[in-house]
Formats: sequence, structure tokens, C-alpha cells
Amino acid sequence: MKNKNYASDIKTVIDELTGLCPTENMFHPNKEGEPFPSRAIMKDSIKLTRSILFPGFFGNASVNKTTLPYHIGVNVEKLFTMLWEQVYAGLCFDCKEEDIDLEAKREKAFTITLSFVKQLPRIKEVLRTDVEAMYKMDPAAKSYGEIIISYPGLRAITNYRIAHELHKLQTPIIPRIITEMAHAETGIDIHPGARIGESFAIDHGTGVVIGETCIIGNNVRIYQGVTLGAKSFPVDENNIPIKGIDRHPIIKDNVIIYASATILGRIIIGENAVIGGNTWITEDVQPNEKVFIK
Amino acid sequence: MKNKNYASDIKTVIDELTGLCPTENMFHPNKEGEPFPSRAIMKDSIKLTRSILFPGFFGNASVNKTTLPYHIGVNVEKLFTMLWEQVYAGLCFDCKEEDIDLEAKREKAFTITLSFVKQLPRIKEVLRTDVEAMYKMDPAAKSYGEIIISYPGLRAITNYRIAHELHKLQTPIIPRIITEMAHAETGIDIHPGARIGESFAIDHGTGVVIGETCIIGNNVRIYQGVTLGAKSFPVDENNIPIKGIDRHPIIKDNVIIYASATILGRIIIGENAVIGGNTWITEDVQPNEKVFIK
Amino acid sequence: MKNKNYASDIKTVIDELTGLCPTENMFHPNKEGEPFPSRAIMKDSIKLTRSILFPGFFGNASVNKTTLPYHIGVNVEKLFTMLWEQVYAGLCFDCKEEDIDLEAKREKAFTITLSFVKQLPRIKEVLRTDVEAMYKMDPAAKSYGEIIISYPGLRAITNYRIAHELHKLQTPIIPRIITEMAHAETGIDIHPGARIGESFAIDHGTGVVIGETCIIGNNVRIYQGVTLGAKSFPVDENNIPIKGIDRHPIIKDNVIIYASATILGRIIIGENAVIGGNTWITEDVQPNEKVFIK
Amino acid sequence: MKNKNYASDIKTVIDELTGLCPTENMFHPNKEGEPFPSRAIMKDSIKLTRSILFPGFFGNASVNKTTLPYHIGVNVEKLFTMLWEQVYAGLCFDCKEEDIDLEAKREKAFTITLSFVKQLPRIKEVLRTDVEAMYKMDPAAKSYGEIIISYPGLRAITNYRIAHELHKLQTPIIPRIITEMAHAETGIDIHPGARIGESFAIDHGTGVVIGETCIIGNNVRIYQGVTLGAKSFPVDENNIPIKGIDRHPIIKDNVIIYASATILGRIIIGENAVIGGNTWITEDVQPNEKVFIK
Amino acid sequence: MKNKNYASDIKTVIDELTGLCPTENMFHPNKEGEPFPSRAIMKDSIKLTRSILFPGFFGNASVNKTTLPYHIGVNVEKLFTMLWEQVYAGLCFDCKEEDIDLEAKREKAFTITLSFVKQLPRIKEVLRTDVEAMYKMDPAAKSYGEIIISYPGLRAITNYRIAHELHKLQTPIIPRIITEMAHAETGIDIHPGARIGESFAIDHGTGVVIGETCIIGNNVRIYQGVTLGAKSFPVDENNIPIKGIDRHPIIKDNVIIYASATILGRIIIGENAVIGGNTWITEDVQPNEKVFIK
Amino acid sequence: MKNKNYASDIKTVIDELTGLCPTENMFHPNKEGEPFPSRAIMKDSIKLTRSILFPGFFGNASVNKTTLPYHIGVNVEKLFTMLWEQVYAGLCFDCKEEDIDLEAKREKAFTITLSFVKQLPRIKEVLRTDVEAMYKMDPAAKSYGEIIISYPGLRAITNYRIAHELHKLQTPIIPRIITEMAHAETGIDIHPGARIGESFAIDHGTGVVIGETCIIGNNVRIYQGVTLGAKSFPVDENNIPIKGIDRHPIIKDNVIIYASATILGRIIIGENAVIGGNTWITEDVQPNEKVFIK
Repeated sequence: MKNKNYASDIKTVIDELTGLCPTENMFHPNKEGEPFPSRAIMKDSIKLTRSILFPGFFGNASVNKTTLPYHIGVNVEKLFTMLWEQVYAGLCFDCKEEDIDLEAKREKAFTITLSFVKQLPRIKEVLRTDVEAMYKMDPAAKSYGEIIISYPGLRAITNYRIAHELHKLQTPIIPRIITEMAHAETGIDIHPGARIGESFAIDHGTGVVIGETCIIGNNVRIYQGVTLGAKSFPVDENNIPIKGIDRHPIIKDNVIIYASATILGRIIIGENAVIGGNTWITEDVQPNEKVFIK
Repeated sequence: MKNKNYASDIKTVIDELTGLCPTENMFHPNKEGEPFPSRAIMKDSIKLTRSILFPGFFGNASVNKTTLPYHIGVNVEKLFTMLWEQVYAGLCFDCKEEDIDLEAKREKAFTITLSFVKQLPRIKEVLRTDVEAMYKMDPAAKSYGEIIISYPGLRAITNYRIAHELHKLQTPIIPRIITEMAHAETGIDIHPGARIGESFAIDHGTGVVIGETCIIGNNVRIYQGVTLGAKSFPVDENNIPIKGIDRHPIIKDNVIIYASATILGRIIIGENAVIGGNTWITEDVQPNEKVFIK
Repeated sequence: MKNKNYASDIKTVIDELTGLCPTENMFHPNKEGEPFPSRAIMKDSIKLTRSILFPGFFGNASVNKTTLPYHIGVNVEKLFTMLWEQVYAGLCFDCKEEDIDLEAKREKAFTITLSFVKQLPRIKEVLRTDVEAMYKMDPAAKSYGEIIISYPGLRAITNYRIAHELHKLQTPIIPRIITEMAHAETGIDIHPGARIGESFAIDHGTGVVIGETCIIGNNVRIYQGVTLGAKSFPVDENNIPIKGIDRHPIIKDNVIIYASATILGRIIIGENAVIGGNTWITEDVQPNEKVFIK
Repeated sequence: MKNKNYASDIKTVIDELTGLCPTENMFHPNKEGEPFPSRAIMKDSIKLTRSILFPGFFGNASVNKTTLPYHIGVNVEKLFTMLWEQVYAGLCFDCKEEDIDLEAKREKAFTITLSFVKQLPRIKEVLRTDVEAMYKMDPAAKSYGEIIISYPGLRAITNYRIAHELHKLQTPIIPRIITEMAHAETGIDIHPGARIGESFAIDHGTGVVIGETCIIGNNVRIYQGVTLGAKSFPVDENNIPIKGIDRHPIIKDNVIIYASATILGRIIIGENAVIGGNTWITEDVQPNEKVFIK
Repeated sequence: MKNKNYASDIKTVIDELTGLCPTENMFHPNKEGEPFPSRAIMKDSIKLTRSILFPGFFGNASVNKTTLPYHIGVNVEKLFTMLWEQVYAGLCFDCKEEDIDLEAKREKAFTITLSFVKQLPRIKEVLRTDVEAMYKMDPAAKSYGEIIISYPGLRAITNYRIAHELHKLQTPIIPRIITEMAHAETGIDIHPGARIGESFAIDHGTGVVIGETCIIGNNVRIYQGVTLGAKSFPVDENNIPIKGIDRHPIIKDNVIIYASATILGRIIIGENAVIGGNTWITEDVQPNEKVFIK
Repeated sequence: MKNKNYASDIKTVIDELTGLCPTENMFHPNKEGEPFPSRAIMKDSIKLTRSILFPGFFGNASVNKTTLPYHIGVNVEKLFTMLWEQVYAGLCFDCKEEDIDLEAKREKAFTITLSFVKQLPRIKEVLRTDVEAMYKMDPAAKSYGEIIISYPGLRAITNYRIAHELHKLQTPIIPRIITEMAHAETGIDIHPGARIGESFAIDHGTGVVIGETCIIGNNVRIYQGVTLGAKSFPVDENNIPIKGIDRHPIIKDNVIIYASATILGRIIIGENAVIGGNTWITEDVQPNEKVFIK
């Protein structure tokens, strides 16, 4: 095999690629010692959180009543340490080279992580209502345990509830990575900014999209393929969308939305409404109304 | 960095979380030595099964005609051992602390696993018809080999056929984990309880849902986004759905169902019928009928 | 536990399975020393490519301006080596036992891989336009960096652009594995044969299907659940679909296609057209036309 | 490459090797479900024990005063589970096919493991005296911590003290594996059957051999290359050594033995004796005597 | 933290190191596609060989009489593939850039590996005599099984016997790596060129050295710290030792050599001789003679 | 299986162990965020250093003349990052809780690591003289390459030379871990404080001990089992050895020391002296003198 130009060809490619790197925003140069968000560690953090919230169901440990506090203790502390580093990485993620103060960011990350960890008992309580809701929604569910270890809906909602707490504490990027991890696994895409009440249930779930400014009440049920999206959004003079405008639906308590319904814009779906499958909804729906495809 | 309350804050969280654990069904205490279903080992079992069913295509082994029986031999035995443990874990999964007899469950798991392994040749033969059907369904398919190693439809059907055998043998939870693994990878959600004939083909597949009591004939073709679901289900006096009622469609031989069709309830789609994309079907379709969106 | 027939039962299964293996195309016997495509190595190759295209965002390295050329250099060379082996495996994948010339295939793989690597700078430039397009499409996007590390749309498009280059160089099977890897992660199924222009954006993306013979212009935006599929295809006298016939849509510049639209057949969607969600399109759409569900 | 006989050659080797297997004691056929001792799990068990005995020095955990009980709790329980399985495997190791009662062996393993775990506090206390003795023996030692994390002598003694407890509880094979693991790492070969007092110190240690029936008092110091061996041993009528006869030295309190001394046979080295390096000792040494090479 | 010169300092170091690389023989430039010996793969190959030679004792497989041939079959084939690559790497190791013919080396490696594999049954038979000899040598040995899974002497002899076969087939470097792996684990350093008869036993073994041109008869026993070395060696005009001259001892049948004896030069230790511990032997020893330190 | 007291027994053990932990110096409580030396990362750092010093021989990379600078560049930077963290951990290792200033220690670690990295070219040059010396010492050595990849002597000397640089920069604990890693692998125990000249060669090496205050000239050769140790050492009023006193031998240029010689105390072995095997030396040896056992 004779490959005369191989080495020089490769060298040319390397030089070209290096030359392209200053291209705006396609290269993330590391600032001195700054950490970078790690998908692998986020994955482990979520696994650890699941083993804290649902002890015995996750984490490979033979936990029992006597040893439960030891496991919770070790896992909470381990989670704190892992998450602190990731939140710290998140805080560094988009900052400019000039204004970086690593020590200050590390302290801020400490405060955020501690606040988050203190919310874990509350997250556990809300997730209990979600498990119950999913059990009531699906005749195929044999037990709460089956839902906890195998239902993608619960998996997506768990990630969302974790991510939403971090979002409320103004952690950059990390919440989005957490919900995207669930999106990849389940096909359910819930933006961490959405606000969702108790007893929330999703069945099957592939293709569900819940946008950033959605507000969802208690006891809402959603099936696969449902979109709660924006209808349109204003752009600025550079044709860049204006951030932070309310543009997704408000879903009131006890609403049921069947498969592949598409609900768009800042509209209100009233209490106890039922939205049929494959529908296309861009206007308010009254309380107790039932909307089906004709 | 001064964090006076850190240790005590963490301790409070640990105590709170421990205190919440008796909450009904959110904690799975390990009974003496009882195994727990392992997603990682189930994943390896499925990989191993694929290397048994499609030798040379999976399993990284340089198997050839001379060494084929050695590979099948080692892999079948390894699969038996791995699966035995998981079936055993499945049998322990929901049982009450009072009535657990580990040795009896281990023997029952042995019997189930042996029965399952004896079905492997039949599973292989049915899967061959599925591969052929998928080859005939897709002009983009260059060879059987391409389907075997890269088509998500075949992946989902393989997991389903394995899970369905274990479901028929009344293995708890494990079949569901197997189909959910395929669901996570492919976006195709087939309940292990569904009954599906030969030469079954799914193309693309993301968003497909096939419910627990579906009955599907031979030579049926399905595209992405198709739901074969329940329209409604009766609940008992506690508002809990009644289990085990037939509530999903019956699809007869040679039916084709195009993308995003939604077919709900215990209805019958007759032989040779064609269901167009994005349709919403809640009533019987006659044999040879073609239903399209207008 | 008494299991008299266990060993002989297992032996029977092994013999049966071995006996079934000559079954046409369900067994891939290894030819002397021939490599087989490896999903694990393909996965690592894609990760490596991402760390070359978006340095600092992927690859766990603390790369900075001084060390950038070293990292690009090492990674390009590592990618070349890994990919060469996989392209070689792809060339061996479907060939017959009689006509195999491993050394010739290895040389051809060298040429293909070198050609591919030389395209990396161009791929990087096109992906920059895709990142920009996605930033402009989504009010929830906080920065280019967020899109690069967390948006499934970009992940799917990156895999597609890599796979498409290899497809153009007539690499068998490998491009399909690459796009299926993205399909599994994101629910977005783009065939490597499709031709797609610059500034292509997909949001959310679960359920998107883009067929083998699609042609997509510049600056096109697509939402979740959109199918660009075939309406029907001719079969030969054995009922096998005829390969390579143009059967998917042509989408012109600046088109927007909203969630769950289904567009089928070799039709043309004209420039600046807007296709509403949940629509079913099987005929040409004129430039600037807007098609919505009624 | 033409390799006509390759497949048949390999097949011949396989058949020959299989045919040789009934050879007495060179093949260990697995009895139904019986576990086999695992070097990897033993290694993890020893690591875990070290993290229990020297918390914060081993185990990668950021343990502090508040979280210490959680870590000890989780680790003791994990150790119990891992060791139980290994002790069980040890009990099965040499038993005949006829008389195997797996359930009885599993219970016996439970009892042994529990007895062992109850000795952990006492093992910790004795090891503290060993660390102190090593600190006093070596001017190069900067702190107790340095000894704990880097001295091979302590590593070998720790493994010995663990193995000796299991040996006293009549666990087959496992204690030997534990001391051989230390032998491989440190070159210090202490038989688990030896009896060794408190404040035992070994410096450097490579080549040290301490035989099965040695008895060593308190406060003994040993350097590299020292053998405490047998001089000869009686054999039975089949020329097989008779097991269990006292044949190794007795070393009294406060003895120092310098590098490469060889001490053989059931002799007594009296209190406070000093044995010089490279000596060859086969007779009793009086208390307070100093023996050096001339 | 202000580190102005960091980047330029590092760059200087990189340039200096790069500049030093042409230094004769301290840099191994990769020739096109040439493999390099891998310690990790050699380690796996040795593990695999042990599982072939002592089935059930190594390899984590639950092998029994029925499944034995499958395991041997798969493992022999896997070993062949792994070793072929390593032997090939060995053949490339020292060759000059000008004369490299990779394809020819690959074929030569094939022939060597096949010859080696055909010797496996004979290696197994000799190792059986070694296990027996070690059992007869040590009163502490409870069973053949204990020797097989835990005695470092057997581990070193196994590696030696494998390496010696490859050495006889003129494989470069690989045999040395194999014996050095045993040296690292056991402290027993046997050169692959030494010739050693049946029923060879080493007890404890740390510090044993057996030189390249040693010839050892049948039924020889050796203890820890024994050196069978060269006394001196001639050098050429560049002060480089002349290779391949016989310079190590010849040990006849039934000799016993006790701990730390040093035997140097091409001398003969006659049949049935006994060499005492810590002795220094540089002249022939007569048959049946006993040499002890005075 | 009835195990009434199991849980309470385990709990008692946990409480006892926790209670013992305040025991002086047997528990290392983590101070806020402080890193701890990691054996695994040190191992990787040493591997990385070897791939920098001997490119192409270590590190699995297919480095060639064109790509050499990229590999050196990436590896030097990676080493800097890994080592910085470990040096930082070393600086924290023994410090008291009161006086810890993590940020200052991190900066000091930066300075030490940078100074170390700047020494790499010099270390490479000295190691070249060691490789040459070993090649000249051993008739069995076929090439420099064989020494570089398989000789334990070179491995131990490489670790020593790295550790000694860090020792000179007053890094706590880390240098000791590095030499102990070599000790475990090779049985050669060189204290990082020893001072050793160029062209240093060790053959076989198991059992070699070189003490903290040794001074060794250029061109010295040492065989297995050689001890360069202390004869005695003064203790303070608490019976603790006084640190830092010169107590090991000085070996002048061109000395050869044969197997198992023991040389003790602050004595001088003069230039060109030859020390025979198994000798016991506690007094000065004159230049050119030859000392052999009688």
C-alpha cells in the first residue's frame, strides 16, 4: 500500500480545522481550571437521585429497614458532591473570559446545590402523587413498583421535577441537560421551565413536547404525541426570537389530553376539559368541554 | 468558604427522607438475599439472545461454520444462567414479606427459564419471517443483513417476541422491562401481552404504541406514529382501572397501517384493509376497505 | 432441586438452533480475518468527530487556544484510524465468500476514509449554519453553546452530515448505522441518502422521518413528528420493491413545516411555503403558499 | 492467504483438550448453580474492608465526622453481602458432587460471615498497634497516614489479619486467596494459619515468607527477605506430606529479625532476641541473644 | 491565580521533548497500520489459556460435563484470534522501516499461532505433572484445586510453559512479555528460553531467577529467592555482551534447591543433589551430594 | 433461614466501628472539598508520562513522525492537569484542620507541577543512559525496545526518577506512592529521596531495597535482592526514630553489586568496586576492591 500524500493530507486537514476554530461560538476554550458540564456525571447524579427518592428500586443496594438511613445518608452526601461540581460547571458555561471569578462561582454553586438538596423530600412527595396518578391511568399497570421501575412517563417526570428545581434556582444549562437525558430515553421532551402541578401522568409518552412557559394544573393526564407548543413568537431587529415571552398553553386541573393532540399558543384549556386525539387546538377550551376530531 | 449549617442541613434532609420512606409502595425493602431485577443484566441477556438468533451479526465473535455450534452452545448456556436469575428476581418482585419462599421461587424460575429456552428455535423461525417482511416493505433496504443490524423495527419486534414468551410463562415484570428497553431505543412501545402473527413489519417506528390486548394477524405492516390503543376502560369503586379487560383493536391478516393512524378500542380491522396516515379510527373497518383522510 | 432433563434439553435446543443456521441470510459466517462493523466503535468515532468539530464542547479535554492544534491533530489521526477499520468492515459486510479480496478492500477503505477526513472542514462550516438556524428558531435557546451540547436536532443533523459524506463515497452499511444511532438517541430518522442544504433546523424532533431520496434546500425548519415519506413504490415480479427510485418530497428554500405534518411522494413544496401541523400533503405546494388544517 | 487445514486443526485441538479433561483434578465441573470463588470480588471485598477499617484513607469517599456512620453502615452491609457469597463459594469449592447441599452451605456461610463481621472492631484495634509499630520502626515514615496509604507491610498484615479470622472460622480456600492477593502486591507471603500478636511490623517486605504453623508474639519486627519456614516434613506411604504438623518457628515477644535471615523448623527464638541479616538459623535462640553473621 | 508564562512554558517543554525524539531507539514510530504488542491483550490471552487448560477453575463460566466442549471450542478459537494479532505485532516489533512486509508477517504469525495452539494439549499434560509435584512439595496444600487457583508457583510455571512454546517458534518479544507478567505478579522471573522438564515445583517463589540458558531436568523443586544465574559473560569490542552463549546452570533430575541459594555459571548440579538455603554455588555439585551452609 | 439477630448484630458492629474512629490517626476526615491522593489517577499519570518519554512504546497510539508533536502536546497538557490535582491532594494530605487554605495549596501545587513538567526533557535524557546501561548489562537483551517495554528494572527506575523530581520540589506523599507502585509491580523498592546518577542499571530486581539517604554515582549496576539499607538509627525520648539522619550507603561510580548482597549503614563503596552476591557489608570498601563470600 503506497499512500504518499497521506501524512500531508492529514496535516492540511488539521491546519484547516484549527484555522476555522476562532469561528464565533463553535469553540469553547477552557479557562484556567474551569470545569465543564459532564453528561456522564449528570447521568450518575440522576441515578443516584432516583435511588434516594425510590430506595430499593434503584441503585443495586440490598437496602432494608435497618440499613435505610445509612444508604440515604451516603447517597445524599454523594449527590451533593457530584451535583455541586456540575452546578459549578453550569455557572461557568456561558461566562466571558474577562469576568470569570471561579471561587465566587464555586460558592454560588454550593448555595444552589444545598438549596436543591433541601427540596428532595418535597420532590419525593410530589412524585408519589405522580406514581398514583399513573397507576390509576393505566389498566395494564400491575403495581406501583412496575411503574417506578419501568414506566418512561415517570422517568421523564422525575427528571423534569429535578431539573425544574434547579431551574428555579437559576442554574444555567444543567436543567436542560437533565430533561434532554429523559427526552433521549423516553421521547418525552419537557422544558425545565414549565410549571406542572401534582398527580401528573403521561402514558407511553413518545413524542410528547411541553414548552418552556407551559403551566399545568393538578391531576392532568397526557398521552403519547401530545404537543403543548408555541404558535408563533416575536423576533427582534436581528431576526432573533425575543426570549422569555409567555407563548405556551395553560392547562387547568383534571384535564385529559389524548394521543397526538397539538395545542398551541398561550391559550387556556379549562378545568375538567377532555381533548381528543389528533386534534389541532389554537383557541381556548372551556371548562368541562370535550373536543374531538369529527 | 464558610458553611456553618451545611452538615446539619444535610442531616435534616437525610432524616426527612428516611422518615418519608414507609410511605406506601415508594420503598422496596430487600428481603433476605432476594435478588432484584437488573436492567444491566437484562440488557446483556437481550444482546446474548440476539447473538444466538442471528449468529455472526451480534456478539463480536468471529463465528464460522466450524465453530458455530461451540458459540451457540456457550451462549445458550450463558443465557440460561443469566435469565434464570432475572426470572427469579421477577418472581420475588411484588411478593409480600410474609409469604416469600425463595427456594420455591428459584425452582419455579428454573422451570420458566427452561421452557423459554426451548422456544428459542421457534422464535428464530418467526423472526426470519419478520426480516423478510421488512425487506419487502422498504425500497431503501439493501439486504437482510442491513435490516438485522440496523433496523429499529426488527429490534423492537425481537424484544417483543422474547418478552411475549416470558409473558405467556407468567413471568412478572421482566417482560415489561424487555419491551421498555426496546421502547427507549426505538420509540416503539409494544406491550408484551399483545399477540402478533408472523411476517410483522414496522418501518421507522418512532411513536408506535401497541396495547396489551391487541391481536394482530400475519403479514401486517405498520408505520411510525401508529397507535393501537384503548378508547376507554372501566374503573372499580376506588377509581382504579379494572385489569385484564379486552380493550385494544384486532388487526386481521395483510393489513397495512400508515403513519400516525390512531386506532382505538376493541374493534376489528378486517383482512387486507388499508388504513391511511393521520386517521382516527374507532369503529370496525371491513375486509379490503381502504380508509384515508379526506 | 432435581433437574434430570436439563442438560439434554439444553443440548437439544443447541442442536436445533445450529441446524437452523444455514437458513438463508440469518447467519453471517466470518471470512478469514474479516472485520465486522462495530456499533461501539462507531459510537466512539462519532464522539471523536464531535470533539473535532466543536472543540471544547465534547471530549472531556481542557483544550485552549495554545493546545487546540495538538488536540485537533491527535483526534483527527485517531478518527482516521478508527474509521478506516469501520469502513473496511462495511466494505466486507455484504460481499460473497468467493469474491472477497481483503487487501483490496482495506486499500479502498483507506481511500474512502481519507476522502472523508478531507471533508471535515467543510462539514464544520455547514454545521455552523445549522447551529445559527436553530438559535434563530427557538426562543428558549439561551446561546449557541446550549444548542451544541444539548439540542437533539443538532445531534441528529451532525450524524446525518457525517453519514451523508460516507454515503456519497459509497460506503456500505456504515452511514446507516450512524444515522440509526442518532435515531435511537433523538427519535429523528434521517436517511443518509437524503440531500439537505445549509441552515437546516429541527426543533424537538421526536418522530421526524426524512426518506432516502428527499431533497431539502437551504434554510428549512422542521418540527417534531414531521414525515417526508414515500406514498407508494413499485415492486418487481418477486414482489420486492425496486431500489433507487425517487419517491420522497423535494422541499425548496425557506420552507417551514410544523409538527406532525405528513408529506408523501415525489412532490415539490415551493420556496417560502409554510406547512401547518397535523396536515396530510400528497400534492405539490406552491411557493409562498400556506397550508393549514381547517 | 490459504489455510486449508486451519478449521480441522483447531477442531482436533479442541477434541484433544476436551478428551484430556476427565484427568483427575484438572477440571472443575460446576454443580447446579454453585458459586465459584471470584478473585475480582475478593479484591473488592478487601478494598471495602480497608475503607471500613481506615475510613477516609480508602474508598474515594469524602467522609467526615457527620457522615461517618452512614459510610460505615453502608460499607459494613455491602461487605457482609459480598463476603457471604464468597464464603459460600469457598464452602462449595472442594466438596464432592454426591454430598453437596447448597442450601446448608449457604446457611453455614451466613453464620461464618456474621461471626467475621463481628470481629471487625477487634481487627481495627490490632491494626492500630501495627501502624504504630511500623511508624516506630522506620525513620523515613513521616506520619501514620503515610503508612496507612503506602506501606506494603501494612497492606500484607491487613490482608493476613482478615484472612486469619476467616481461617479460624474454618472457611476453605478464601483466606488463602486473600493472603495470596497481598503476596502478589507486596512480595510478602504470610500463610493465613500463622498466629501473630499485636504491634507487628514488616519493613520493605519483599520476599518475606511466614509459614502455616508459625507463632509470633507481640512487638516483633521483620525486614525484607526473611523466611520463617519448615526444615523438613514427614510424608505418608504415598509420598504425600502429612498435613497439619507443627513445623515452623515460634518467635517470642520483642524479637527483631533483619533482612534475608532464614529461620527453619519448629524452633524457638526467645524474647528480645535479635537475628542478624543473611543468617541461617535451624536451632533455638535464647532470650536476649543476638545472632549475627561472622 | 495569575500564571502568565504557563502556556509558553508548556509549549517549550513540548518542543524540547519533540526535538529529543529522534534520539536513537527511544521513539517507536508506527509504520502504516502495523500493530503493537498489547500488554492488556496478552493478559487476556493468558487468562483465556488458563481457562482452556484448567476448565472450571478460571474464566467465570459455569462449565460442566455437557457444556465443556462448547467452552473449549469457543475459547480455543478466541485465543487463536487474539494471539495471532499479538504474534503479528511481535514480528513487527523490531523490524526496520525499509524491509517491512506486513502481509508476509501476518501469514508467518498465522503459522506460528497455529503451531502453538496445536501444542496446548501437551502443555496441559506437563502442567498436570507440575500441579502434582507442587502438591507433594507442600504440607499446607489442601487439594490440587487450591494449587491451581492460588499458588504463585503454578502461575509462573504456566506462563513460562506458554512463553517457552512461543519462544521455540521464534516469536519475538511476546514470550518475554508473558514471563514478565508472571514476574510482576509472583516475583518469579523465568526467562522463556530456559528449558525445564516435567514435575517442576516452586514454593512461595518470590525472588526466584532462572536465566535464559538454564537446563532443568524432571522433578526439580525450588524455593523462594533461588537464583540460577550467569557468573560472567564475554563482551564484544563495543563492550556489548555477546548474545546466545550458554552461561547458566544445568540442573539434573530430582534436585532440591532451598531458599535463597545462588547458583551461578554453566555448572552442573548432579541428579538427586540437595542444595541448602543461602548457599553460594559456582562449581559443579556431584550427584546425590548435599551442600549446606556451615 | 431464620436470622433473628442479624440486623441488630450488624448495627452493633457499625456503632462499635464508628465509636472507634476518633482513635488517633486512623480516620481521615475530609475537609471541605479537599481532594485526596488517588492511586488510580497516579497510575494513569505514570502511564501518560511513559508515553511522553518513550513515544510509540506506550499509550496505544499509532504515533509517527508527522503526528508526534500532536501526541506530545496533548499528553503533556493532560499530564499537567492530572498531576496538578494529585500534587494539590498531596499538599492537603497531612495538614491540620485549623490551618488549611485550599486556594493557597492549589496555587502551590500549580507551581510545583509546572516545575516538574519543565524537567521532563532532562528526565528523558537520563533515562536514555539507563536504557543503554541495561542493554550493556544483559546478554539476553535483544534490543533497546525490549528493555523499554518489558524490563522491570527500567520501570522501577522510571518511577523513581519521576518521584525524585517531585520529592526535590517538596511534594508530600505523592512521590512515595509513585515508588511504591513500582515496588508492587517489580519488587524493587527505591525511596524517592535517594540520589542516583546516570546510567543506572538493575537486572531482575526482585527484592532490591535502596534507602532514603543513599547516594549512588554514575554507571552503577545492581542485581536482584540487593539491600542498601540502614544499620541502625537513633530514637528520641519517645522511642520515635529521629527523621532525616544520613544512614544509608554511598556508592561511587562504576560499582557492581551482585545478587542478595546486603550493604548497611552510612559507609562508602569506592569507585570501581565489585561486591559479590550474598555478602554482608557494614564497613567501607576501597576503590577497585572486590569483595566475595569465601
